[in-house]
Amino acid sequence: MPQSEPTPIRRPRADRARQVADVLRHQIHAGGYAGGLPGEQDLAAEFFVSRNTIREALATLKNEGLIERGPKVGTHVAVRKYDHGLDRLVGLQETFKDYGEVHNQVRTVAHLAAPPAVARRLRLQPGESVVFVERLRYVSDLPLSLDQTYLAPDIGAEVLRHPLEHNDVFSLIEQVSGQRLGSATLALEAVSADPHSAATLQVPTGAALLMLERLTSLDDGRPVDLEYIRMRGDRITMRGSLIRSIP
Amino acid sequence: MPQSEPTPIRRPRADRARQVADVLRHQIHAGGYAGGLPGEQDLAAEFFVSRNTIREALATLKNEGLIERGPKVGTHVAVRKYDHGLDRLVGLQETFKDYGEVHNQVRTVAHLAAPPAVARRLRLQPGESVVFVERLRYVSDLPLSLDQTYLAPDIGAEVLRHPLEHNDVFSLIEQVSGQRLGSATLALEAVSADPHSAATLQVPTGAALLMLERLTSLDDGRPVDLEYIRMRGDRITMRGSLIRSIP
Repeated sequence: MPQSEPTPIRRPRADRARQVADVLRHQIHAGGYAGGLPGEQDLAAEFFVSRNTIREALATLKNEGLIERGPKVGTHVAVRKYDHGLDRLVGLQETFKDYGEVHNQVRTVAHLAAPPAVARRLRLQPGESVVFVERLRYVSDLPLSLDQTYLAPDIGAEVLRHPLEHNDVFSLIEQVSGQRLGSATLALEAVSADPHSAATLQVPTGAALLMLERLTSLDDGRPVDLEYIRMRGDRITMRGSLIRSIP
Repeated sequence: MPQSEPTPIRRPRADRARQVADVLRHQIHAGGYAGGLPGEQDLAAEFFVSRNTIREALATLKNEGLIERGPKVGTHVAVRKYDHGLDRLVGLQETFKDYGEVHNQVRTVAHLAAPPAVARRLRLQPGESVVFVERLRYVSDLPLSLDQTYLAPDIGAEVLRHPLEHNDVFSLIEQVSGQRLGSATLALEAVSADPHSAATLQVPTGAALLMLERLTSLDDGRPVDLEYIRMRGDRITMRGSLIRSIP
């Protein structure tokens, strides 16, 4: 057998179902099925698989909370997912201005002694005071993310003079510092929700969260904002682009 | 009360524990505790919290599989987490060349009729043949990701002439096309592992996975490689940087 024409291995149905589910997931996020998904038979024809495989793929998407299925009513998209850009440094409110109103429930505002690891990243002395803010963020009344923010003391004190309920911290930092933000380093992980975070975000314990750690600097290079952001995995997609070579 | 000096709200211990866990998680990933974590009392002093709060934070990290704890032996880092760059378009083997050997278990190689959604993204006719490859990817014998790859037919046929076990598809595409890759669009989500994917990746059902969908184009702009990559949440961190303004 020439290597260029392999015979397909007989694959378990679960593999084929995953393959179908991934393509459907993409189409759902892209807004492709606003009026409901096609019937099982049509999907089976579209994907060249059996109806049982389609059923298994749809069961996976239903378990993820992405679609609703019912006899007679058919299959519908249950959750609107929001795109968050990975190409530019923007706050949630800037990002979602076309989706709906962002509002923040401020759960904690405190002056804390910075733990050494926080102090180091914000270039402070260990134990030096930082401003800590915890917010639960909503878009159109749906809880989206739980944000813990550590701010450099001078910037933080000024930021707290402004209402946090309807402002991005990013825009407040720029306002009080008189500088543009410069850049940020970020780390993205998938974590399972601990019971308390799950309850706060209104998801089941263990639900998949997208965890973003982001250290943001002013235009002059000084790091002023360290954030730990837990985003609901079922509500947010991070989107960006990459190039092969460094320009 | 002036807004700049808020009185800390009395916070539930779970909130403080989450806060500690997030900072510790960062330090663990940064390689800060290779010789083991400090004792509870030292951590309590470092974070200005009670030992009970430290215990709750460590319990969270233990549940995530990140640390191991035992009487007498103390607290140790259980899992080495790998950094995957978000700043440049690179394959897994290029990325992890300093961490250990990448090898791929090829689970499926097939010529498939492209479902319409796949065809559209690869700019093919619906039903036109595509090359489909499913690989389970290991770094140093630890399963890391489950990759489903759809390749444009001409590129795919040539790629299949080469062994896939020890090569990145990216480098093979460049080799057979005689072109550099240009750019890719990507979407990152957190999803819970379905039972079959979980078993394949050797994680519990429902474990948090980082799901990457990536469409990669040749330097001439033609999209040739559509991938759906499920990464173990406990093994991979995506890292990058962002700037505030488009340059």
